[in-house]
Amino acid sequence: MSNIPKIVILGAGYGGVLTALRLQKQLNYNEADVTLVNKHDYHYITTHLHMPAAGTDNPENARVSISKLIDEFKIDFVKSTVVQIRPQDKKVILEDGTLSYDYLVIGLGGEPETFGIPGLLEHAMNIRSINSVRLIREHIEYQFARFKREPHRTDYLTFVIGGAGFTGIEFVGELADRIPELCKEFDVDPNLVKIYNVEAGPSALPGFDPELVEYAMNVLTKKGVTFKIGTAIKSCSQDGVVVQKGEDPQEEIRSQTVIWSGGVRGNRLIEEAGFETMRGRVKVDDQLRVPGSDHVYVVGDNSLMFNPEGRPYPPTAQIAMQQGVVCAHNLVASIRNQPLKNFVFSNKGTVASLGKGEAVGIAFGKKYKGRVAAWLKKLIDIRYLFIIGGLPLVFRKGKFL
Amino acid sequence: MSNIPKIVILGAGYGGVLTALRLQKQLNYNEADVTLVNKHDYHYITTHLHMPAAGTDNPENARVSISKLIDEFKIDFVKSTVVQIRPQDKKVILEDGTLSYDYLVIGLGGEPETFGIPGLLEHAMNIRSINSVRLIREHIEYQFARFKREPHRTDYLTFVIGGAGFTGIEFVGELADRIPELCKEFDVDPNLVKIYNVEAGPSALPGFDPELVEYAMNVLTKKGVTFKIGTAIKSCSQDGVVVQKGEDPQEEIRSQTVIWSGGVRGNRLIEEAGFETMRGRVKVDDQLRVPGSDHVYVVGDNSLMFNPEGRPYPPTAQIAMQQGVVCAHNLVASIRNQPLKNFVFSNKGTVASLGKGEAVGIAFGKKYKGRVAAWLKKLIDIRYLFIIGGLPLVFRKGKFL
Repeated sequence: MSNIPKIVILGAGYGGVLTALRLQKQLNYNEADVTLVNKHDYHYITTHLHMPAAGTDNPENARVSISKLIDEFKIDFVKSTVVQIRPQDKKVILEDGTLSYDYLVIGLGGEPETFGIPGLLEHAMNIRSINSVRLIREHIEYQFARFKREPHRTDYLTFVIGGAGFTGIEFVGELADRIPELCKEFDVDPNLVKIYNVEAGPSALPGFDPELVEYAMNVLTKKGVTFKIGTAIKSCSQDGVVVQKGEDPQEEIRSQTVIWSGGVRGNRLIEEAGFETMRGRVKVDDQLRVPGSDHVYVVGDNSLMFNPEGRPYPPTAQIAMQQGVVCAHNLVASIRNQPLKNFVFSNKGTVASLGKGEAVGIAFGKKYKGRVAAWLKKLIDIRYLFIIGGLPLVFRKGKFL
Repeated sequence: MSNIPKIVILGAGYGGVLTALRLQKQLNYNEADVTLVNKHDYHYITTHLHMPAAGTDNPENARVSISKLIDEFKIDFVKSTVVQIRPQDKKVILEDGTLSYDYLVIGLGGEPETFGIPGLLEHAMNIRSINSVRLIREHIEYQFARFKREPHRTDYLTFVIGGAGFTGIEFVGELADRIPELCKEFDVDPNLVKIYNVEAGPSALPGFDPELVEYAMNVLTKKGVTFKIGTAIKSCSQDGVVVQKGEDPQEEIRSQTVIWSGGVRGNRLIEEAGFETMRGRVKVDDQLRVPGSDHVYVVGDNSLMFNPEGRPYPPTAQIAMQQGVVCAHNLVASIRNQPLKNFVFSNKGTVASLGKGEAVGIAFGKKYKGRVAAWLKKLIDIRYLFIIGGLPLVFRKGKFL
């Protein structure tokens, strides 16, 4: 019907939503036709998922209806699952249809990287969507109920979290807070409950300030978390995990609940599209485009960028949001034949929550811990709600704050 | 130390608690030494368990701490599990000790009767204790969470209830009320959820007024329950049940949730004690004693008594409570060498709840249905709380009313 360019955004995560919101603001009437595609009719706040996963907050506080975020007069929304990306045809195949594009933004989010550890894919759960965290929460409660009927099965009360990165650490902090409540609800002796956080690397929160890592581990250990650092998960089964520290003998941890937060890789659809990838991620150019495919942008977990020291940036909400802003700018610039902008990451800092009233973080170049850091974490959450949905969203979803 | 007679009451269900409360009131100081033994430190209100099982009420509203019911200056309470009854030695072996008695009251409650249907014991859950209903509630919620991760598994959303007696009917009424809430919470299409109530007998609520049975089935069918009456469960496995109506071909119902309410038998400890039983129940004499064992009383689900037409009374809370009263009277009379009283059942009526605001019942010789019957059900619940705990208990636990 029209000759205006078609922009298709795949995924309404941090990168996709920020791209959409900025396009909505910057594009003039009839300057482009923008379609946002997402599997669910809601956006979820990934950095908040550790709470509903542990059951310390309602999952509703971690999601926002997309219709509340975007203006559907300006941006079309299609609720569907992407099946295939066909860059040669400039088409995207959905579960129930096909979309053509002139410009494509891939913000589909990553997938768990299990590093080929046997059984992890089949038997471990992941903290990565509303559905997956509701499963974790229900699974945990179910184990308490099962234990009361089979009191010899202490493996029902043993929880193994693989990975002590930000997600793993934030989750064990919440879980440790939740355990006393569950013990009370189900008449279970708290001493029978075990939480293991297993990390193959030499430290929890790898790359983070060592003083803050030590503080975090102390806080969590006092809450009842047992750390197994420098310890690899060798295999996972329906009975639990086998772990090994260095050359020590292997050890079995019998558990009915294994949660894997040990790695993220790119989405398989990207490899399947024929783009060159490293662990499923595309090394995008400075303007966030796929090399050789000027009309395809990648934002968020699927984009691979390196810092000035040549190390890859970890996939975080912060970088995805900043990429969304630059991506939208470059799309508008392309349409208007204006020069594109280079993406430069501006590190605003990082805060990891450790459960109620406790956190560690670095912001504005300063270290924070304890109650102040926990407040900082809340401010970051509020700021995000404000960015995507303004004050109404802060008031609606901010009750967890 | 003393020569006063020792009374041991096994089980703090309806029969045991009423016996204990009446003894506490009627015995003079130092007239007898009364010990109540129970597996848990709480009494539960069995007739209310269908609600926490479905998740429409908190399990806390279906239990009362025993220390709030009995006066521990007058009655000793031992929290333990009975392992063996030795009438020849006048001893009861507990998990962690032994008790001698002069008089024994057995109020241990029944067990599910599975009639030898293969797999039912291993794969079906039962509505019979706080622990078992918490398991059912958590199990059901977990199925919704699992379904969202494996949307082809509609068997996660199929619920089979075996038995359409009072427990089965009251449970499906609550479950049907709960389903819309769960569908909303987990974003599940309510049309995918199936509730089957399978009854081998020729009618739901066997022995109940046919007009009220029809009313009940209409109410529940409208709420989404599918009845399979005159249909036997032939087997149960981890995949669901196989059912058969008369000589029709067998039918498989794939389900991850099978709840069996199709029968109650006596406690195995009673057979093992060497008492003569029928389906585990003792045909007690008119004074509620085991024939040939004048010092052993049986109340509740383990006592078998016949109505004037020669049919056994069904095991209900009502009869157990009345037995408790007569049992206490006869114990006191025995000690005082006074004549014992015969037990005569006085039928106050029966009400079956069908979920929120709906019930059917017969009371004071009249039929009730709908909202009035639902109120009657609440009055019966309040009356029970009042009997065992007075007004304070009505106010504390009555919030579900």
